[in-house]
Amino acid sequence: MMKLYDAALSGNCHKVRLLLSMLKLEHEVVAMSLPDLDHKTPEHLARNPLGTLPVLEDGDITIYDSQAILVYLARKHGGEDWLPGDAAGQALVQQWLSYAVNEIWNGPALARAFLLFNRDVDLARCQAAGQSALAHLDARLSAHDWLALDRPTIADIACYPYSALAEAGEISLAPYQALNAWFKRIEALPGYVSMPGLGG
Amino acid sequence: MMKLYDAALSGNCHKVRLLLSMLKLEHEVVAMSLPDLDHKTPEHLARNPLGTLPVLEDGDITIYDSQAILVYLARKHGGEDWLPGDAAGQALVQQWLSYAVNEIWNGPALARAFLLFNRDVDLARCQAAGQSALAHLDARLSAHDWLALDRPTIADIACYPYSALAEAGEISLAPYQALNAWFKRIEALPGYVSMPGLGG
Repeated sequence: MMKLYDAALSGNCHKVRLLLSMLKLEHEVVAMSLPDLDHKTPEHLARNPLGTLPVLEDGDITIYDSQAILVYLARKHGGEDWLPGDAAGQALVQQWLSYAVNEIWNGPALARAFLLFNRDVDLARCQAAGQSALAHLDARLSAHDWLALDRPTIADIACYPYSALAEAGEISLAPYQALNAWFKRIEALPGYVSMPGLGG
Repeated sequence: MMKLYDAALSGNCHKVRLLLSMLKLEHEVVAMSLPDLDHKTPEHLARNPLGTLPVLEDGDITIYDSQAILVYLARKHGGEDWLPGDAAGQALVQQWLSYAVNEIWNGPALARAFLLFNRDVDLARCQAAGQSALAHLDARLSAHDWLALDRPTIADIACYPYSALAEAGEISLAPYQALNAWFKRIEALPGYVSMPGLGG
């Protein structure tokens, strides 16, 4: 059975929890504690030299980036629904996977990590980057129901948790009407699961 | 014909130049100047709301993240060579696309951007992150010829330019023997093209 190394408060882990639930995939959860630094033990560094969570093990395969795990699950179990196989579709999804890794991570996710986990970052810089990242999402979603295609894909899953958790980084979500409407669309998808700080 | 909006000194653009050349794909280049802020004009923001380069136009499709453009070109023109279609292969490549966007961008790329383009970042922080990012690459490459699979893929293309340009951010490459050997392997690939600061 697939095994997910998971931390309850991690938005990166939540991306994977969401897709596992939406695809109804059986799996074992190994609960790890970020404050206890379970992700920095020699055992975990042998799984993932970056010492991050989540990590997914599936038979011989170990994958350790949340976007990569979404790609794996979507291609293996999701047909064409969550990540299409054609060049244009894959590229349009990839644009937002990169956005999750750069703009959303360096903005709302790191601002939250500073306030929740004392992560060593410049809070004001992360909050400013976060406002810009959320405003760009809001602009996109003013004209489109979903980020990459005309249906939900792993682009939406990858960008959702840390943008919806932005207020934990003391970045207000009040200005962003289209973004808030998209949160509600995601929270209404079959199989949606919540985590502390998220709706639904 | 495909059209690439390109800046000569951009490592992100160079990823795309490399794959276009290796795949021998005809295309038109639109040269843009970063110092003149060609990428912040209303015309360019209409192509790419993030105001970044590169941008690729191919018929009706416009793609604006360098990793996404690599995915597009590899899936459309590269068969299974540069980005396989199976779940495990795609996920292992994605791990390194995310690495290019996070660890390499936030490390050596932004340190160089500070020194070359006066980008508003914390240089010491980027240099420290850069050393860590390069050391992790070096560790991986001590045991593997290529980053994701047993052959070159877009994972290698995505991670190469800004790691090989690290000294422009005043991060020494001298400690990293396996990394330097990988640079040479990439620079020996058919169709490799150079840019200021790179070998080959």
